[in-house]
Amino acid sequence: MPRLRLALAQADPTVGDLDGNASLVIAWTDRAAGEGAHVVAFPELMLTGHPVEDLALRGSFVAASRRAAEDLAARLAAHGLGEVVVLTGYLDADDRGPRPAVAVLHRGECHAEPEGGVVRVGGIDIALTTGDEAAPRPAGLVVHAGGLAYEQDADDSRLARLAARAAAAGAVVACVNLVGGQDELVFDGDSLVVRPDGALVARAPQFVEKLLVLDLDLPPAAAEPPAGHLVLAVPLAEPARPVPAPEIAARVAVEAEVWQALVLGLRDYARKNGFHSVALGLSGGIDSSVAAAIACDALGPASVVGVSMPGQYSSDDSREDARELARRTGLDFRVEPIQPMVDGFLANLALGGAAVENLQARVRSVVLMALSNQERHLVLTTGNKSELAVGYSTLYGDSAGGFNPLKDVPKTLVRRLARWRNEEADRRGDPAPIPERSITKPPSADLHPGQLDTDALPDYEVLDDIIAGYVDGGLGRDELVAAGHDPEVVERTLRMVDAAEYKRRQSPPGTRISARRAGRVPITNRFRTRVGSAL
Amino acid sequence: MPRLRLALAQADPTVGDLDGNASLVIAWTDRAAGEGAHVVAFPELMLTGHPVEDLALRGSFVAASRRAAEDLAARLAAHGLGEVVVLTGYLDADDRGPRPAVAVLHRGECHAEPEGGVVRVGGIDIALTTGDEAAPRPAGLVVHAGGLAYEQDADDSRLARLAARAAAAGAVVACVNLVGGQDELVFDGDSLVVRPDGALVARAPQFVEKLLVLDLDLPPAAAEPPAGHLVLAVPLAEPARPVPAPEIAARVAVEAEVWQALVLGLRDYARKNGFHSVALGLSGGIDSSVAAAIACDALGPASVVGVSMPGQYSSDDSREDARELARRTGLDFRVEPIQPMVDGFLANLALGGAAVENLQARVRSVVLMALSNQERHLVLTTGNKSELAVGYSTLYGDSAGGFNPLKDVPKTLVRRLARWRNEEADRRGDPAPIPERSITKPPSADLHPGQLDTDALPDYEVLDDIIAGYVDGGLGRDELVAAGHDPEVVERTLRMVDAAEYKRRQSPPGTRISARRAGRVPITNRFRTRVGSAL
Repeated sequence: MPRLRLALAQADPTVGDLDGNASLVIAWTDRAAGEGAHVVAFPELMLTGHPVEDLALRGSFVAASRRAAEDLAARLAAHGLGEVVVLTGYLDADDRGPRPAVAVLHRGECHAEPEGGVVRVGGIDIALTTGDEAAPRPAGLVVHAGGLAYEQDADDSRLARLAARAAAAGAVVACVNLVGGQDELVFDGDSLVVRPDGALVARAPQFVEKLLVLDLDLPPAAAEPPAGHLVLAVPLAEPARPVPAPEIAARVAVEAEVWQALVLGLRDYARKNGFHSVALGLSGGIDSSVAAAIACDALGPASVVGVSMPGQYSSDDSREDARELARRTGLDFRVEPIQPMVDGFLANLALGGAAVENLQARVRSVVLMALSNQERHLVLTTGNKSELAVGYSTLYGDSAGGFNPLKDVPKTLVRRLARWRNEEADRRGDPAPIPERSITKPPSADLHPGQLDTDALPDYEVLDDIIAGYVDGGLGRDELVAAGHDPEVVERTLRMVDAAEYKRRQSPPGTRISARRAGRVPITNRFRTRVGSAL
Repeated sequence: MPRLRLALAQADPTVGDLDGNASLVIAWTDRAAGEGAHVVAFPELMLTGHPVEDLALRGSFVAASRRAAEDLAARLAAHGLGEVVVLTGYLDADDRGPRPAVAVLHRGECHAEPEGGVVRVGGIDIALTTGDEAAPRPAGLVVHAGGLAYEQDADDSRLARLAARAAAAGAVVACVNLVGGQDELVFDGDSLVVRPDGALVARAPQFVEKLLVLDLDLPPAAAEPPAGHLVLAVPLAEPARPVPAPEIAARVAVEAEVWQALVLGLRDYARKNGFHSVALGLSGGIDSSVAAAIACDALGPASVVGVSMPGQYSSDDSREDARELARRTGLDFRVEPIQPMVDGFLANLALGGAAVENLQARVRSVVLMALSNQERHLVLTTGNKSELAVGYSTLYGDSAGGFNPLKDVPKTLVRRLARWRNEEADRRGDPAPIPERSITKPPSADLHPGQLDTDALPDYEVLDDIIAGYVDGGLGRDELVAAGHDPEVVERTLRMVDAAEYKRRQSPPGTRISARRAGRVPITNRFRTRVGSAL
């Protein structure tokens, strides 16, 4: 059997940056060539970035994507990389509209989408798939250019799906996946190679860029290719050096997986939008503490501005916990008491009740946005999924900002993440970033004296279970009661979730927890924006 | 030929309000019965409201929609309306997912979607269509349950499309359309009846509820219906009283049409979300003046709170123009100078440049949101489409609010609307609402001394033409230059539009001007929300 050295480039492109993404392909191909690879494969929409969203509907963008693939073939050849067969995802279009496609680049030529989706390389038929494409023609190897976003998944269903596809195709399936955060999604890498008998041949780690190189002994194609078949005369010379046995990355605990997703999501969001630092309010509570710890892991503590903005009802414990978090993490700590500014409004407007509570949150938002304008920070908000689902936040107050790392993290998981991150620090011998009291004390918005979240909400264990059923699982009132929940609590929670829908609709798009995502909730979705420029 | 008396109920349902919408059907059917109608037809998704968006993906909602249709048949019979054949849009689902459907209600029975989409009524075959359905089987009459949103359209293309459909079917086509504002859309009514030769038989006016009743002489069906055909034995008795010749509403000028769309969109948005009043900032400029005039027409001046919030750089003319607008319209006028509150922030934060400009806009937003919390107003924002497209606004400042009546109105059209509304007042002998100086003075954000929009933007005539080409028309840089625009201006504008995309993404969903809407821009899109509750 011919032996093919295949490289899978688990890369992190940026949406819309055609030039930069093409340069990534050249750099990764250069590395793959150095490892003696005959073929190097890139993920779905590598040249345009993924998801392209509205850009796909611009004919000029589709044309630019095609041109980028052609130019790239020439650039690769000019770099002396023409002999490597490069398979790369890009955006194309046909009568039915725009769609992801795979181009074959070789010796300065761009073969856009070979007929039948199969290319013969050195006598081996390689079937190319991407997006939601149906199964290809018979081949010796299936290469799937993947664009699979991270979802919490204890069952490792991606491996099971690929194994089923390999069995159906009777061929080795190699899935090279995107990695990195882009807009509302985090692509987790986790590229896989699976044999038709279900055996796992290679697996890249999650959440990091990776070049996976391996040798595959593959069945030779029939002597006579079908008419129109793309045949590349590539001698499958024995590479000068052997490669080590391919990596099979181990799965990690769910908390580690989610933490890495959140860190990568924030880091890439800031980088791809040109931000070098973030600013967030530190209340001393668990949400802002966990968000700050994620930001420190993503950008380094010197690039994280944490602002304690105590108000009239902020307890001494709250102020102290914020300061303690700053001490432990080493972030850039500021204190801006809000009462003088709140009093300025109260002196001029006749306000009471909820209007005064919300005023405090909105003054904090004005302070953070002013800092953002002045010093160019991305403003982080820190409302968790449980709060957002029931609308427990202030419009244009604590919900105002450019990115929310906890948007898709229910409160109970926030607690688990806090404990896991502190234990992880212990394991490494580092100081635990999150003050213990922030984790254990009863949650409060600190907007009126003695206020507790439980004044308005069920216990978070109950709330999160109801939200998971109603928002993510599509269950109705009766099914939730049948599952053992108190009917009054179910009805009250469902009313809050329904009413909160209105509020979310006035919030940035990324904050909306939509039934559309039922059963398919990427763990990090973010507000997608550049913050606070005047123009 | 048998003569059928047909009633088309151009009605305004509310999304999600199954009970209320069923009650509307009963009330309209009662009126139609009083007019002697044999058949009364309702628009697309009448029972659920339109657009149902995420609700369509909830199995429990689809089930509730089906149940509502069945219950409605029983309720109609209980009201003594069982003899009238009611054709009504509702939401159903099949293997391919949820979709709009038409139910036939008669004598207490609900016939969900007759086979072949045809029902025989008193010997006449009536084909039922809705949504984007393909042409039905041959019939003597086609009734289309329409859900057509308003788009600016000088060519009356809806009439042309229906005439083509009538010609293809060789039958009279009656399209009964929704009317009213719902979320991002305004349905404009404009129900039509067209003969196969293209002759217009009846046309309801735009933007008002209407029961269109007419007699149609229609070809009898073949004697023997196909197997499974739904046949209702309805004697087509000659009604006791004749009906007048059906109305053929005239088309109105584009400014009148747009103004009515904006007024109806705001009125319905407030009503369907439980608001009785609105609040907006009055700068003395044309945008807030036109928005205030729309609000006064929609809700009455007593329900419109206009807040003048002069700052350090607001000119005397600006303050006076705001006051003059209030005097002319009679709205509820307040004055809240912002400088004391702005100074409170400046005393505590080291700010300069754009951060100080944006601070003024954000303090105004906090004032309006506090008023909204305290007095339960819906906050209106007033940025026009031109400003939004190039990002000429402050995040969480002037762009913060629950509804923007001018979101899809370019600046040049804002000016035309202002002049039209004043002339319309003259024609009626009413006072012109908008001060002349607000229309004629050069636009300014008043955020630093001597500031003019033209410091940062091209002339609005040029800007609007470029935006129309780039945002709505999908044209690229080269095509805009070929159309006669200055290359430097085109490039600068396109850079602003691209950069503003980030900013819009942090704004409420309704503010996003998306390429997805290219060529299909409903004139009023709004933020969809309930404003400012603490929970």
